[in-house]
Amino acid sequence: MKPENIQALIASNEAYRNIVERTSVRLYTDEPLTAEQLEALVYAGMSAPTGVNKQPWEFMVVTDRALLEGLAAGLPYAKMTAKAPAAIVVCGNRERFLEGDDATLWEQDLSAASENILLAAHALGLGGVWTCIYPHADRAEVARRVLNLPENLVPFNLIPVGHPAKAGHPMDKFHPERVHQDKL
Amino acid sequence: MKPENIQALIASNEAYRNIVERTSVRLYTDEPLTAEQLEALVYAGMSAPTGVNKQPWEFMVVTDRALLEGLAAGLPYAKMTAKAPAAIVVCGNRERFLEGDDATLWEQDLSAASENILLAAHALGLGGVWTCIYPHADRAEVARRVLNLPENLVPFNLIPVGHPAKAGHPMDKFHPERVHQDKL
Repeated sequence: MKPENIQALIASNEAYRNIVERTSVRLYTDEPLTAEQLEALVYAGMSAPTGVNKQPWEFMVVTDRALLEGLAAGLPYAKMTAKAPAAIVVCGNRERFLEGDDATLWEQDLSAASENILLAAHALGLGGVWTCIYPHADRAEVARRVLNLPENLVPFNLIPVGHPAKAGHPMDKFHPERVHQDKL
Repeated sequence: MKPENIQALIASNEAYRNIVERTSVRLYTDEPLTAEQLEALVYAGMSAPTGVNKQPWEFMVVTDRALLEGLAAGLPYAKMTAKAPAAIVVCGNRERFLEGDDATLWEQDLSAASENILLAAHALGLGGVWTCIYPHADRAEVARRVLNLPENLVPFNLIPVGHPAKAGHPMDKFHPERVHQDKL
């Protein structure tokens, strides 16, 4: 049961509701996405916060059926991509990675960008699901081969996206015992 | 200049606008946050997607002034925390980390949760900023000492949050040359 405060916000605040009612969508209708919808998704991705303003991301927008099928065939948790109208492969660009102790921060930036894409999809009445590539070398090899990625791009995840074929039911993952006030 | 399609969405879709108009807010009024606002932020964090449903996150909600000042004093990019009404330290819980090649996926989950917190803050008329702790051992040590964190919690970032003291201007980070259709 959600706290009353949260129920009230969900009822009254469209932007808040969009965040907490997003679901992972794995089954899509045949309706294609428009170029405008796909642009809106990557625009949202590029609106994410990014350390030292590096913007270390790059986006492969895939709508070619043979490529979608090739990705689905090689990636163990991305089988739904074969029947999705589109997928976005979020990649890191090594030329914009930080160095030293900050060398892994591109993963945080790309994760925030990926969440933005999923939330933007939900805001547009679409749906997608985050399927992990990085740091699995075997999965990276599949994405690299199918999309012919150059060495400087690191495939991070694959987000198939489309019109949801059925209504989603957001999981309630609220665990108040994981919230601590001031000191433990 | 934003594409027309994006301008139209910003004008018509509150949930989409919230994603692309979020800004990093580093200056706050003295107005405290309510317990309901803080709960809504962590609720949004816990609504993020999470690999294998591990939900490897834990949230320290800090409103005690001495603790906020202690964090600000020790963390190089979090000085604004000293004057923020609150901060959330997003932590990983090692007991819910995956293993093997998936051992770093908690970082992706926590990044998505952090972005949800920032977007929820913006949806509520509040503002915050992602200040990096992980993987800097020196910063982790500061958070660990000030908040008395047990060994199983890994401080990931610190998000000071409050009522923005001035209007934000979202950066336009749209680079169409970073979007590729199908093969490169």
